[in-house]
Amino acid sequence: MSKPLKVALLGCGVVGSQVVRLLTEQAEDLAARVGAPLELAGVAVRKLGRKRDVPVPEELLTTDAHALVTRDDVDIVVEVIGGIEPARSLILAAMAGGKSVVTANKALLAEDGETVHAANRADLYFEAAVAGAIPLIRPMRESLAGDRVHRVLGIVNGTTNYILDKMDSTGASFTDALEEAQSLGYAEADPTADVEGFDAAAKAAILAGIAFHSRVTAADVYREGITEISASDVASAKAMGYVIKLLAICARSDDGRSVGVRVHPAMIPRSHPLAGVREAYNAVFVEAESAGRLMFYGAGAGGAPTASAVLGDLVAVGRNRLAGTRGPSESVYADLAVHPVGETVTRYHVSLDVADKPGVLATVADVFSRHDVSIQTVRQEGRGDDAQLVLVTHRASDAALSATVEGLRELDIVRAVASVMRVEGDETP
Amino acid sequence: MSKPLKVALLGCGVVGSQVVRLLTEQAEDLAARVGAPLELAGVAVRKLGRKRDVPVPEELLTTDAHALVTRDDVDIVVEVIGGIEPARSLILAAMAGGKSVVTANKALLAEDGETVHAANRADLYFEAAVAGAIPLIRPMRESLAGDRVHRVLGIVNGTTNYILDKMDSTGASFTDALEEAQSLGYAEADPTADVEGFDAAAKAAILAGIAFHSRVTAADVYREGITEISASDVASAKAMGYVIKLLAICARSDDGRSVGVRVHPAMIPRSHPLAGVREAYNAVFVEAESAGRLMFYGAGAGGAPTASAVLGDLVAVGRNRLAGTRGPSESVYADLAVHPVGETVTRYHVSLDVADKPGVLATVADVFSRHDVSIQTVRQEGRGDDAQLVLVTHRASDAALSATVEGLRELDIVRAVASVMRVEGDETP
Ligand SMILES: NC(=O)c1ccc[n+]([C@@H]2O[C@H](COP(=O)([O-])OP(=O)(O)OC[C@H]3O[C@@H](n4cnc5c(N)ncnc54)[C@H](OP(=O)(O)O)[C@@H]3O)[C@@H](O)[C@H]2O)c1
Ligand SMILES: NC(=O)c1ccc[n+]([C@@H]2O[C@H](COP(=O)([O-])OP(=O)(O)OC[C@H]3O[C@@H](n4cnc5c(N)ncnc54)[C@H](OP(=O)(O)O)[C@@H]3O)[C@@H](O)[C@H]2O)c1
Repeated sequence: MSKPLKVALLGCGVVGSQVVRLLTEQAEDLAARVGAPLELAGVAVRKLGRKRDVPVPEELLTTDAHALVTRDDVDIVVEVIGGIEPARSLILAAMAGGKSVVTANKALLAEDGETVHAANRADLYFEAAVAGAIPLIRPMRESLAGDRVHRVLGIVNGTTNYILDKMDSTGASFTDALEEAQSLGYAEADPTADVEGFDAAAKAAILAGIAFHSRVTAADVYREGITEISASDVASAKAMGYVIKLLAICARSDDGRSVGVRVHPAMIPRSHPLAGVREAYNAVFVEAESAGRLMFYGAGAGGAPTASAVLGDLVAVGRNRLAGTRGPSESVYADLAVHPVGETVTRYHVSLDVADKPGVLATVADVFSRHDVSIQTVRQEGRGDDAQLVLVTHRASDAALSATVEGLRELDIVRAVASVMRVEGDETP
Repeated sequence: MSKPLKVALLGCGVVGSQVVRLLTEQAEDLAARVGAPLELAGVAVRKLGRKRDVPVPEELLTTDAHALVTRDDVDIVVEVIGGIEPARSLILAAMAGGKSVVTANKALLAEDGETVHAANRADLYFEAAVAGAIPLIRPMRESLAGDRVHRVLGIVNGTTNYILDKMDSTGASFTDALEEAQSLGYAEADPTADVEGFDAAAKAAILAGIAFHSRVTAADVYREGITEISASDVASAKAMGYVIKLLAICARSDDGRSVGVRVHPAMIPRSHPLAGVREAYNAVFVEAESAGRLMFYGAGAGGAPTASAVLGDLVAVGRNRLAGTRGPSESVYADLAVHPVGETVTRYHVSLDVADKPGVLATVADVFSRHDVSIQTVRQEGRGDDAQLVLVTHRASDAALSATVEGLRELDIVRAVASVMRVEGDETP
């Protein structure tokens, strides 16, 4: 057994306190797996006096995070503060001192991964940043290293999945489902980052970068949240055998030369493996050329699950330090461009309120055909003078579909474009 | 870019030929990911003249596998011959020469992993040996290295899952479903290794060893196949909201001091994530202390998916060789004993044909209670003079249940013990 590796912990909140607990409770196993004990050198927090979920020896706590990460005896820095600053400066200071870094900070990696990857002189591991406890970063960058990923479809935000699942199973409105999620602690008082898709977009950027060996940032990600989803959207999806999920989608273009990265609600068939992902669970579906269809499922957040991912990384970087080596560093050799959302090609579910008179369908169909959007199915339902027309298209570009919707809005006989939703995951495999 | 790493391929059948194809087709990507080109040094086969799925340059083919693996210029040996010999001797010879080894050979690892792990002087990677393309070995031994695995429940044999899925969805008998699987190429002419659970048992041994950091061999695994499953077993499971799957189960005992490893058909609730695994797909469900419930899903076999896993390992060992380092080696420090199946604790579904007269239920219940097996639900259905009694127990040891069944068989009023099946995966989480 080698001499202890010293670990500096930055942040002792939901995740950090569980890291402290596991470092203590699993000390023996961790030492056996690393080949050296992992010893907590210090814990940086904002306020010393605060009550912690887990007891932390007082002499370990400090508010001087910078001094902690630059201590000579520290080998590994675990950053679970979150946000851009001071997390970035602290990570950079740690790296300048040759420390290995483990972080759960999706916001930083998605916004400015380039800076931290470039400064990395030892290891930078971040399994916990995407989909919490689910092993995803390591399988994607190592297990699939011999394959070519075509597409990643992920449910990577537990809050929105909980809300959409409740809407689907109980018929609740978005507002009621959000309130329930808040009362159960699945959603924060200010739910913006989750329900508007910012959190999922950060994860999508990280996943796309790894899947396609290219640099993708949060700013590259097209994003729509779930606040506009109505109970009737959910019900009509259900009636057609679909379920609405907030998906993070990273896909190679058909010619393979660029990638699209987007986060938005979409209808997926109930037979799709992602459709069965209930409550606040996360799952990521990967389509690779040789491996075929893979799915990774589990808890996407929570203190203990996220800490499990942090600890797995800690064991890896610990082993690497002892062996005097480094894990795989950032791989961006493919350098693919991210194409604008207009070039995205997928299928669409369009619901229209129309006047119920002869020739309406022909007029509507003509607008689709003028924009080269071909229709797969149409269903019309009379409602007195009005009718509802539900169309599902074949694959078409987002730009063509948007132009079609513009055209439909201009028609007198179309009273309203009630909803437009992408349909994913039902290609014949 | 470093000078090429030379790869010796042993076997060029279903998997090997796809490895050849991918090494060629993905050459540029592989080189970028490894940091050096991967160059095929030779391909050992049994018969030179055979028609191959993929063209192999004639000068690379050889029947002298031993000469190939001991060539000085070979860096990495990929073994996809299968079986114990000559695979083991060839791997040992390669290791003696300091080569890194990638293998898909579950039979060898489960029967004599100890010998090959002990001889390993560089890397021994075997992602392809369990559940084909699904990243499982790497997540289990690396991502979960900071966690404590309690239980692994896996559908790890595609043939039997295909058969059971057909029985469930069409009501077919075992024989008819097997025939269909054979005609579609999902089952071999001699299906013994699959339907009797030998293949799943080998994978269970490998998974258990990794999950519990202990040595487990195929001989330690309790094994029952699916040949006795009748259409009526499947139907009655369905009526109760269950589905029958062949599961590989690796579980820590309640006191954590030993592990049980078993392969047998079991009833799982339809709401369980494994219940939705259709056709020949595989999936492995892992319960870990901090991470919670995880599932890994994908294609468990087939040339290209298995080759994807082999290539992922090739990239990893290639990178390790360039860095002059090694990946994690076998971890058996916990050294847990494998307990006999009698000590397994689970729930049981017992179906009895009984005489339909007063006092029958009391007599039957008494036998359960004498063996300390407590009953959760009973359902009785009259059929003229006879009745069918279906009981589901609370958790009980296999030994207690076996004794109970013996006791039931001795009762005059019990005409037959129609079926006894374990019930898994429906603990309140
Ligand atoms: N929570 C999850 O389920 C989850 C899941 C996946 C990833 N993550 C990621 O994990 C990270 C941490 O999340 P969390 O939920 O644990 O956050 P949290 O509960 O808000 O904890 C943040 C911690 O950082 C400390 N801190 C804040 N500013 C600091 C500063 N300037 N210097 C030193 N310490 C400072 C806080 O100190 P005080 O305690 O003194 O306030 C607190 O201990 C984030 O990047 C998040 O995205 C979280
Ligand atoms: N097939 C799958 O879907 C799958 C999935 C997971 C794991 N695996 C594992 O992968 C391994 C290979 O399976 P496979 O399906 O590819 O087998 P396979 O199609 O039967 O191919 C075996 C290959 O090994 C060659 N071979 C046999 N004996 C040899 C010897 N003494 N010296 C040199 N070469 C010899 C054969 O040569 P000839 O071609 O000249 O006969 C053939 O090319 C096995 O360990 C299997 O368990 C397979």
